Amino acid sequence: MSKLDSLLAIPVLDRSNQPRIQAAVDGKAKPPRALGRIEELAVQLAVIQKKSLPSVRQPQLLVFAGDHGLTRSGVAAFPSGVTVSMVDTLLAGRASANAFARVVGARVSVIDAGVAADLSDRRGLIHAKIAMGTQDASKAPAMSTDQVISGLLAGADIATQAIGDGADLICLGEMGIGNSSSAALVIHRLAPAPLEICVGPGAGHSPEGLAHKHMVLAKAAARTDAAEPLEVLTQFGGYEIAMMAGALLASAKAGVAVVVDGVICSAAALIALRLAPQALDYCIFAHASVEPGHRVIMEALEAKPLLDLDMRVGEGTGTLLAIPLLQAACALLSDVADLKDVLEAAS
Amino acid sequence: MSKLDSLLAIPVLDRSNQPRIQAAVDGKAKPPRALGRIEELAVQLAVIQKKSLPSVRQPQLLVFAGDHGLTRSGVAAFPSGVTVSMVDTLLAGRASANAFARVVGARVSVIDAGVAADLSDRRGLIHAKIAMGTQDASKAPAMSTDQVISGLLAGADIATQAIGDGADLICLGEMGIGNSSSAALVIHRLAPAPLEICVGPGAGHSPEGLAHKHMVLAKAAARTDAAEPLEVLTQFGGYEIAMMAGALLASAKAGVAVVVDGVICSAAALIALRLAPQALDYCIFAHASVEPGHRVIMEALEAKPLLDLDMRVGEGTGTLLAIPLLQAACALLSDVADLKDVLEAAS
Repeated sequence: MSKLDSLLAIPVLDRSNQPRIQAAVDGKAKPPRALGRIEELAVQLAVIQKKSLPSVRQPQLLVFAGDHGLTRSGVAAFPSGVTVSMVDTLLAGRASANAFARVVGARVSVIDAGVAADLSDRRGLIHAKIAMGTQDASKAPAMSTDQVISGLLAGADIATQAIGDGADLICLGEMGIGNSSSAALVIHRLAPAPLEICVGPGAGHSPEGLAHKHMVLAKAAARTDAAEPLEVLTQFGGYEIAMMAGALLASAKAGVAVVVDGVICSAAALIALRLAPQALDYCIFAHASVEPGHRVIMEALEAKPLLDLDMRVGEGTGTLLAIPLLQAACALLSDVADLKDVLEAAS
Repeated sequence: MSKLDSLLAIPVLDRSNQPRIQAAVDGKAKPPRALGRIEELAVQLAVIQKKSLPSVRQPQLLVFAGDHGLTRSGVAAFPSGVTVSMVDTLLAGRASANAFARVVGARVSVIDAGVAADLSDRRGLIHAKIAMGTQDASKAPAMSTDQVISGLLAGADIATQAIGDGADLICLGEMGIGNSSSAALVIHRLAPAPLEICVGPGAGHSPEGLAHKHMVLAKAAARTDAAEPLEVLTQFGGYEIAMMAGALLASAKAGVAVVVDGVICSAAALIALRLAPQALDYCIFAHASVEPGHRVIMEALEAKPLLDLDMRVGEGTGTLLAIPLLQAACALLSDVADLKDVLEAAS
């Protein structure tokens, strides 16, 4: 079995303890189902962790950074060099993700998946660069098949390592100028959905800029009829997207819940889940991105994000804000009295 | 000036630092407005706290408990005695609010506003009982005017005390069997809105139980045409509702942000804001309750809650889950680099 086949061989989630956990949640001192999605999270985490009392004590955010050849065709409002600057900002602990991570007690790792600059001197960075950015997908496949497989496996290794180091929750995030364009093409082919409804302003655009983005992406889409997940990833994806997909699969394989961020991260999840649909049970979708493609993915996966705060930063910021909700779900199971005891005391 | 007049004399929020704070938020290393509601919270907190770097270091949840004479007419699915049991569960640290509070680092205080039982032996309880529950509002005014004023002032005193003890965020919650009925009547008169769309299942009801609740509340509404906030509170409110309204007003008066929970708490906020509309600027609405009356209030106040997790427990649970969002907003201002520095490094 190849390494990729092995990564994709994710067992279907064992739900044998689910009735018992659901009964425990139902029996807590509150009106039935009155904690809504927190109750659902409690059950999901207990089933994933195969524990009556699940916990989220060491959440780990992995921020994968990569550059996109599509930026050379002018799809992005910011120059590609901003990817490097934001990597440096993340490494310095001064990006939004770092700020939020400190609030919720998460660790942050930053990975050079394929930034178009030599970052070999950066301390604290996980060096996993596959190439200096992708090819311009409006003219050629973004990556080679070998690069895609390397990306998936590298992302998997990084998640596996984090879990080995004690992480009990994997949060996925990204940084990469141009990657909302890459994501739009992936969503278009894998949801699938018309390209027009998958394209949004990304980090910001004038009406003219957005029209140009639509045009370039239509050109990329016209270049190939790829529709299989690996082929779509090869044609339109990015190194950070490949690695997030691999990290998601490895987390599921390790039996660890994985929190998915906004539109780019969800596009990576879409690839992963088209490759291994059974991994969906391990996924928690954190935040409803403002980008239109995100809704397309959520509908395709029949998923409902936990939060909707009009955010579109990426970096895993949405996943971080979901962590306290997951911890509240754990606390429901571990800390809250049973209703029968309360009612007995009342009678 | 009476004590109540003094409580209502809340200065209009001084927004002189708002342009500067907004510029600071706009200048952070992220696409413009890309942190959405977190950015709005950052500005709101900085303006309220009159600081460039606001903080939420000592959030304090106040859970006000009271009983309702309406339960004698069969409006509630649980017996009134459950209020006492849940007060004891809260005091034992084993209610949902305690569990969530530990996750987010909030203190919890429990107040006997008007529980229909002698709780004088309970340690750790704040003893502020005004009466052994309200009168049955389907037959008589729930409270006297003196009781209402005592309730408002007691709630104000408790919030003022918490702020004096160092709380920099006041979260409001409640426990009281029957109080969704009381809230429905308050919303009906003060939103205002037709009674039918203000009534929901509360902590749970069979279709027959819900029909009976509608009937009893229609009878209560038919008894009086009260429409002024103090009169509505007197006719239909409860001790915990009066105290939450008073606590909100005192927090605003002290210049401290106040987080409002679901439908009961929002009904109390509606009373407070009809008495002193300028207090709205100090309010943060935490969670969209499943109860239909909550949407009515949000529309009446043109407010939008931060979270929508299908919760309807009360106890301030929604406010607690909003705390990390507020802390993330503070961290945005204090911890995130400026975009101009990132772009300079990129050029």
